[in-house]
Amino acid sequence: MRNTTYIREIEKYEGQVVTLSGWLYNMRSSGKLRFILLRDGTNVIQAIVSRNDVGDEIFNRCDLLTQESSLKITGLVVKDVRSPIGYEIQVNDLEIVHIAEEYPISPKEHGTPFLMDHRHLWLRSSLQHAILNIRHEIISACRSYFDNNGFTLIDAPIFTPAACEGTTTLFETDYFGSKAYLTQSGQLYMEAAAMAFGKVYCFGPTFRAEKSKTRRHLTEFWMIEPEMAFCDLNGDMDIAEEFLEYIVQRTLKNREAELKLLERDISKLQNVKRPFPRISYDEAVDILKKSAEGQAFEYGNDFGGGDETIISAAFDRPVMVHRYPADVKAFYMKNDPEDASKALCVDVLAPEGYGEIIGGGQREDDYAVLLDKIKKHNLPVEAFDWYLDIRKYGSVPHAGFGLGIERSVAWICGLQHIRETIPFPRLMHRLQP
Amino acid sequence: MRNTTYIREIEKYEGQVVTLSGWLYNMRSSGKLRFILLRDGTNVIQAIVSRNDVGDEIFNRCDLLTQESSLKITGLVVKDVRSPIGYEIQVNDLEIVHIAEEYPISPKEHGTPFLMDHRHLWLRSSLQHAILNIRHEIISACRSYFDNNGFTLIDAPIFTPAACEGTTTLFETDYFGSKAYLTQSGQLYMEAAAMAFGKVYCFGPTFRAEKSKTRRHLTEFWMIEPEMAFCDLNGDMDIAEEFLEYIVQRTLKNREAELKLLERDISKLQNVKRPFPRISYDEAVDILKKSAEGQAFEYGNDFGGGDETIISAAFDRPVMVHRYPADVKAFYMKNDPEDASKALCVDVLAPEGYGEIIGGGQREDDYAVLLDKIKKHNLPVEAFDWYLDIRKYGSVPHAGFGLGIERSVAWICGLQHIRETIPFPRLMHRLQP
Repeated sequence: MRNTTYIREIEKYEGQVVTLSGWLYNMRSSGKLRFILLRDGTNVIQAIVSRNDVGDEIFNRCDLLTQESSLKITGLVVKDVRSPIGYEIQVNDLEIVHIAEEYPISPKEHGTPFLMDHRHLWLRSSLQHAILNIRHEIISACRSYFDNNGFTLIDAPIFTPAACEGTTTLFETDYFGSKAYLTQSGQLYMEAAAMAFGKVYCFGPTFRAEKSKTRRHLTEFWMIEPEMAFCDLNGDMDIAEEFLEYIVQRTLKNREAELKLLERDISKLQNVKRPFPRISYDEAVDILKKSAEGQAFEYGNDFGGGDETIISAAFDRPVMVHRYPADVKAFYMKNDPEDASKALCVDVLAPEGYGEIIGGGQREDDYAVLLDKIKKHNLPVEAFDWYLDIRKYGSVPHAGFGLGIERSVAWICGLQHIRETIPFPRLMHRLQP
Repeated sequence: MRNTTYIREIEKYEGQVVTLSGWLYNMRSSGKLRFILLRDGTNVIQAIVSRNDVGDEIFNRCDLLTQESSLKITGLVVKDVRSPIGYEIQVNDLEIVHIAEEYPISPKEHGTPFLMDHRHLWLRSSLQHAILNIRHEIISACRSYFDNNGFTLIDAPIFTPAACEGTTTLFETDYFGSKAYLTQSGQLYMEAAAMAFGKVYCFGPTFRAEKSKTRRHLTEFWMIEPEMAFCDLNGDMDIAEEFLEYIVQRTLKNREAELKLLERDISKLQNVKRPFPRISYDEAVDILKKSAEGQAFEYGNDFGGGDETIISAAFDRPVMVHRYPADVKAFYMKNDPEDASKALCVDVLAPEGYGEIIGGGQREDDYAVLLDKIKKHNLPVEAFDWYLDIRKYGSVPHAGFGLGIERSVAWICGLQHIRETIPFPRLMHRLQP
């Protein structure tokens, strides 16, 4: 036995008698009629039970049903223009599977901590449903883009041996007597893999033990990281904008109903078309300085969330900010040959104040320069022996980037807080359920 | 700048002059000719450099090239029937990007520890290339199967709060003063999600701190886990066999060249067609008892790797073994209503001795029975409050399974050891590179 008839495909069954399996979303009574809203995980449909049609025994079962009770309904699929999905069910039979206890989540307002404690049930609500369907679409679009463009999937390891950029934000575990750290990025591994496969990507969870309680931080989040051999910063930006346009436009095309339910202003997403503006860090600072809140910004610093909001507000689509001061960026970034104080990096800022969704750039490909940078950053050279090897054996210009999935979901869905963008969020004070 | 011309698509460029970017795989000299094998990560092509065509300066550059040096070759794409890929390049120009130091991996035999230490370079070899391309195909097929069959992707969390099945094989980390454990399975979360979405799956890394050095164990491995509401054991087996057939047949179709390179006997894979044999644990024990090595098997035990090999040898395709003794299976399995000593579970054993690749079954859906099992297993009830909720609010028959990606790759590729099935393997004594 397995359920094969779903509300999502109900139009296939018009004029037929079907059995639908699901849960009671809501019920309305009117004399000898019961109007059941049945949800089956794919959609919600109205099923009409008439005492005259089904007889007393079946009709009386309706009144035993509580919210979220599970049941099977057998009936005729008929067109109905008033239905949001165009069809309803005229019930012949109704079987109760399980009567739910009093459901803790009611239509009245609940606080976020309560809902988060009940995340395993909250997932059943229509808004969470819409968000996670869009998340699925975005993830699927990400993979399709790279699969269709000749990239090879190379899963990066989760356990990493060395603390590459300081241990303060790393989760640590005992690994059979040694220490292992949970990955913060697969990039270094992708660089090695790009030399083997030309174009690669990884897609997996990454971890950051940040003592941060902002609306943009999770301790566990998913990231997709492409890396390309024979590619420079401009090529990297070309791919980043093509990729972002693809995932946004595909989501618009396939998830219109969900975006509508979330009351997302889709005109803002329709704007996400190439070319995206490309501005240097210096130009971004100019924008900041012209704004009231940005005047105090000190040239040379990295941008904070507030700064990013001001910069992105100047554009109607994602903006690519390149060539930050090398000092605020990671050791593996290649310096700009035309201005060694700058890194050949790029951050893509989402519109509407959703902040940085992509970070990337061209990697240092010269052995001596990279070794020097590792030493200057006081990093343990022996831990980077294998990484330096990439510059010993056929080094080539290469570049890549990382896209944070949850921030992208927040932006595309128009959500204030990142915690609803992942099925079971992990935050500083949230490890359950 | 980014590379857009790849050897994989070389037939598109017949009769045209192209520039290919890549690495020297090998070179042969013959008087005024140099035969360069160029690899670009997508394939290998022969490029012929003639002193008469290119002149002395360019010709002499060839003799500077060492194995794995990076270079760009410009030349005419011509058909060549002797070429394994049907084309070769008549070189007009050759640009050296980087001269590689003496490459540590030579065509002579290396020991596995040496190759594993150089995994970041070993990935460039043709066999590793083939394996990881097949891995990519299998992962992509897994996702396609569920995406195309109405499943919603619901990522399970990696950090879990409770030690569900004992702490001995769990990796532990400090989580802001509490303890968190790395997930061993997303199943419990998928059960909750199936009640919200009907059919769901998760796909991510899972972790097992087993002090095991067998050829079938990794500490970090990827698993895909579907879960279906309104589904029983038979429905679960229907989906498992349809799914396995799909991924094997798609890999055969799209990765013939790679399977050939690995000298895989593809007739064994062509057999992987529905229906798969379904036998009970009792029937599997009968098979064991009839074999010389299996006679000593004690009824009631779980099967070991050797037992699985004997059982699977009786069939020419995967075999589904159902209804194991409940005592050897996890607490969440539903007991067989026709024989309470048995669990409604299924293990799918790959042919040719590759062992268990799928484990799954129908879940206990009765609140009181599940609570009782949790207590009998001495598990902390409060840690399972949320999981028990699934049986309080519209409980339904449900089932699912987990497929181990690396074991599936080993089987489909025909590999002796699981360590080559993942880009950067993590084993008890292997955390690097």
